[in-house]
Amino acid sequence: MLKHLIEDGSTVLLYSLKGKSWLVKVVSKNEFHTHFGVVKFSDIVGKRYGDVVQTNLGQELILLEPLLVDYLMKSERRTQIVYPKDIGIIILETGIGPGSMVIEAGTGSGVLTTAIANFVRPTGKVYSYEIRPEFIEIAERNLKKAGLQDYVVIKNKDASQGFDETEADAVLIDVGAPWSLVKPAFNALKGGGALAAILPTINQAEKLAVELKKAGFVKVHTIELLCRSIEAREGMSRPSTRMIAHTAYLMFARKSFLKVNTSCKEYPCEGSELA
Amino acid sequence: MLKHLIEDGSTVLLYSLKGKSWLVKVVSKNEFHTHFGVVKFSDIVGKRYGDVVQTNLGQELILLEPLLVDYLMKSERRTQIVYPKDIGIIILETGIGPGSMVIEAGTGSGVLTTAIANFVRPTGKVYSYEIRPEFIEIAERNLKKAGLQDYVVIKNKDASQGFDETEADAVLIDVGAPWSLVKPAFNALKGGGALAAILPTINQAEKLAVELKKAGFVKVHTIELLCRSIEAREGMSRPSTRMIAHTAYLMFARKSFLKVNTSCKEYPCEGSELA
Amino acid sequence: MLKHLIEDGSTVLLYSLKGKSWLVKVVSKNEFHTHFGVVKFSDIVGKRYGDVVQTNLGQELILLEPLLVDYLMKSERRTQIVYPKDIGIIILETGIGPGSMVIEAGTGSGVLTTAIANFVRPTGKVYSYEIRPEFIEIAERNLKKAGLQDYVVIKNKDASQGFDETEADAVLIDVGAPWSLVKPAFNALKGGGALAAILPTINQAEKLAVELKKAGFVKVHTIELLCRSIEAREGMSRPSTRMIAHTAYLMFARKSFLKVNTSCKEYPCEGSELA
Amino acid sequence: MLKHLIEDGSTVLLYSLKGKSWLVKVVSKNEFHTHFGVVKFSDIVGKRYGDVVQTNLGQELILLEPLLVDYLMKSERRTQIVYPKDIGIIILETGIGPGSMVIEAGTGSGVLTTAIANFVRPTGKVYSYEIRPEFIEIAERNLKKAGLQDYVVIKNKDASQGFDETEADAVLIDVGAPWSLVKPAFNALKGGGALAAILPTINQAEKLAVELKKAGFVKVHTIELLCRSIEAREGMSRPSTRMIAHTAYLMFARKSFLKVNTSCKEYPCEGSELA
Repeated sequence: MLKHLIEDGSTVLLYSLKGKSWLVKVVSKNEFHTHFGVVKFSDIVGKRYGDVVQTNLGQELILLEPLLVDYLMKSERRTQIVYPKDIGIIILETGIGPGSMVIEAGTGSGVLTTAIANFVRPTGKVYSYEIRPEFIEIAERNLKKAGLQDYVVIKNKDASQGFDETEADAVLIDVGAPWSLVKPAFNALKGGGALAAILPTINQAEKLAVELKKAGFVKVHTIELLCRSIEAREGMSRPSTRMIAHTAYLMFARKSFLKVNTSCKEYPCEGSELA
Repeated sequence: MLKHLIEDGSTVLLYSLKGKSWLVKVVSKNEFHTHFGVVKFSDIVGKRYGDVVQTNLGQELILLEPLLVDYLMKSERRTQIVYPKDIGIIILETGIGPGSMVIEAGTGSGVLTTAIANFVRPTGKVYSYEIRPEFIEIAERNLKKAGLQDYVVIKNKDASQGFDETEADAVLIDVGAPWSLVKPAFNALKGGGALAAILPTINQAEKLAVELKKAGFVKVHTIELLCRSIEAREGMSRPSTRMIAHTAYLMFARKSFLKVNTSCKEYPCEGSELA
Repeated sequence: MLKHLIEDGSTVLLYSLKGKSWLVKVVSKNEFHTHFGVVKFSDIVGKRYGDVVQTNLGQELILLEPLLVDYLMKSERRTQIVYPKDIGIIILETGIGPGSMVIEAGTGSGVLTTAIANFVRPTGKVYSYEIRPEFIEIAERNLKKAGLQDYVVIKNKDASQGFDETEADAVLIDVGAPWSLVKPAFNALKGGGALAAILPTINQAEKLAVELKKAGFVKVHTIELLCRSIEAREGMSRPSTRMIAHTAYLMFARKSFLKVNTSCKEYPCEGSELA
Repeated sequence: MLKHLIEDGSTVLLYSLKGKSWLVKVVSKNEFHTHFGVVKFSDIVGKRYGDVVQTNLGQELILLEPLLVDYLMKSERRTQIVYPKDIGIIILETGIGPGSMVIEAGTGSGVLTTAIANFVRPTGKVYSYEIRPEFIEIAERNLKKAGLQDYVVIKNKDASQGFDETEADAVLIDVGAPWSLVKPAFNALKGGGALAAILPTINQAEKLAVELKKAGFVKVHTIELLCRSIEAREGMSRPSTRMIAHTAYLMFARKSFLKVNTSCKEYPCEGSELA
């Protein structure tokens, strides 16, 4: 069987067993410098993904095909990014998948945008709103690096004035005043469509929950995911000493045509009713 | 614009504001009984998703289009299922997406199978191995209910004897003795391909990590996600009193052609290097 | 050496290996009924703590001397109690110990009162304020059962009108509107004295932090402790499936004579500076 | 009323609103240098605890009376210390309090020793075993600084050879091979006496649980406490971004005269039975 080999122009994740990695574009006439030594790209061209190269200092580097998550974590950023753990549950809770039409408010560095673009392929689309032109440039570079720019339309518009789209499957909100987007989101969503919001503070969650229920959203529920790294080592396993304790609260809801939703019943993310 | 309306034969999530929901197939001549009262399906046909119906006891039920997560959480099951929080990060960490070729060992009730099938659409495929015929039947019913059976091949075979496939993008392991599948997984994966394992106990994680490193896997790391439900209520916000404290440890790795991997360097799920 | 033996009138924790336990007073002419069978108290008198008795159904019960924590967890209660994990850190963070003079606002069922009384022995004192007479009765019964009533003075007074005491080592606040007690607490505390508040909601924490800083309190910091139960079993260790996810936020501060404290620098409970 | 004033020779916690603090001994002829400027000790003598002094650079420092926790966190150390959150629950779960006779194996830097010494005052005693003489010196300095040396006897002996004491109220184990101390602990404890172990890895917990049950210990249960710091700020409250994710597992048990304890029933730290 023909193997897929690394070519001039390929993007490769160089992974050191010491836990460092670099996302690099192979340019065969150049070389790549790390504090573990130098690698000539000409030594990489023609190799398989999974192969090992040595730096001039004798350090081994593994050649890995970058996954979406590598593009996300290595993206250029000037804002707090949305983390993989949060992206994963957002996709599940909103039903985003191949073919979805998704609106995002707050492109930022485009990390969530890139992730969603990946999962709506090949027939879906992401419409992402951002008022700060400088972030749009960063997001576009990040999307292009991941090869996902065709699935995204970034708009330099104020989302609180309304989205251009209607009948969206999902609206994702990642802005400082998320409650200002409740009506635009309602208008843009199809009946039963899903909303997700990324909320650093509990105060944002409080205010947004009130506005969502007033607007007729149902199944309004909020979670946070804590990711704990485990050192699984023979005879001496334990959780890692330090962890990221908080990224954001995540709020989810579904659009309904209910007149006034005064429900205050919350449902747990994996709660008794669902589980 | 033409709205997508509920028809005879549609599957609908009936959602009560009291936090209960039911996944039902609309059969217009029948009716649906809950402890909140009775709904005639003939009253539902022709309605929009997001619309509200009343039971004969005056209780409101919202008509929602089921998302993938609703099919997962309402699936028929006889085993511990993989939870949405874990499915989400598995997809991110393994790079599964549209077009992926994925092998799963341990179909069980088919909940993870169903989720993965959804995300590899339209051109990918899931090959799922299960030695217990009674589980295959359950999994097939769950897949069919979610309309995803075309993306999955379930095999009644012992995965520890080897997988039939090669050049897989990802292998997912959800069995009691995951270390017995390290060599089959290595053989089935493409260079750099991703492996994920769902591990209820830390002892499984210990043993698997050793075997993965021996076989040449790199970037071996283990996490657990804790999902905390938040009651975001004006002026009285707090985490919910109870939570599910543990579902499973998740281990991730990438196949390399490294001769012997004696690395014991772990990297955190959102660690200093990546973030 | 003379062993301390169980007598008529002793309080004993009967502990079943099945995980149930009962705090009982030994009355030699009576017997104790459980769903594991009946035990005659006359069979218990004269036994050592640590000894085993059998019920008439052949079930083994261990005779344990009750610890403070057993009195706390078996106390009569009509309110949410303060949990051992929270009591422990409160004692550490406030410096409560033998000889401390402590004021408590919100006696409730007297569980925290009982715990603090235990640790200020033999020369300290707890002054506990409660406006609801029915709770005072419960608290007094709980204190008496634990034999700690001599170390506590419960007052049926509104703490927001001021405490009678001054130069207190610590003030503990467990009421719904903790901010109303900031000035009384300041007046009652000695210079540098410690304050702790038990706060179910984040909103209480927010409001209290503002008022504490305005009043000149320093080192204002807030934590929550999550207690996870671990099933440590040979070859199959894992965290328990369910846990209590939230009891209360705990806020700590020290009284200073600073004019206006506009500090918004928080310090972590085991943070970089301290550790 | 006569206030307690700072004297020459007093130990003071100098606390900066910027979150740094220093535990210093006041020597009136000297001065104290920080990167916030210099303070003359002669300016401190005669002040009240809670008063504010200024450095020569105009930075305010609060004069606080050191609490036990300040001595613990500022102690000289060459080992991983036991954290306040863990000390607090250990005291609660073992019933340690005024008058307790406590044995400790593994003095280390003496941080736990110091804490326990504080709580057994005035009539209790701590017997602490340490095989490494260099740690004994550190522990003794830490105890003396906190003024608690009179409540502790440190022994340069191998605890696995047996403790000298009997009828102890509690035995605390903080060594690498805790299972080697199960028999010594059993022999040293009174009937029903409490054992606590500090266990960095899950493997230690597994092995210890087995040995404890074999020896007749009951109520064997394991927990871990996670301490999360909360930023409670008006309108923008959230958990801190980073936290210490793991210090140690804590195992608790009670000595019984049960012949063979094959119980595998665990009880949660605040579980259904107790709560």
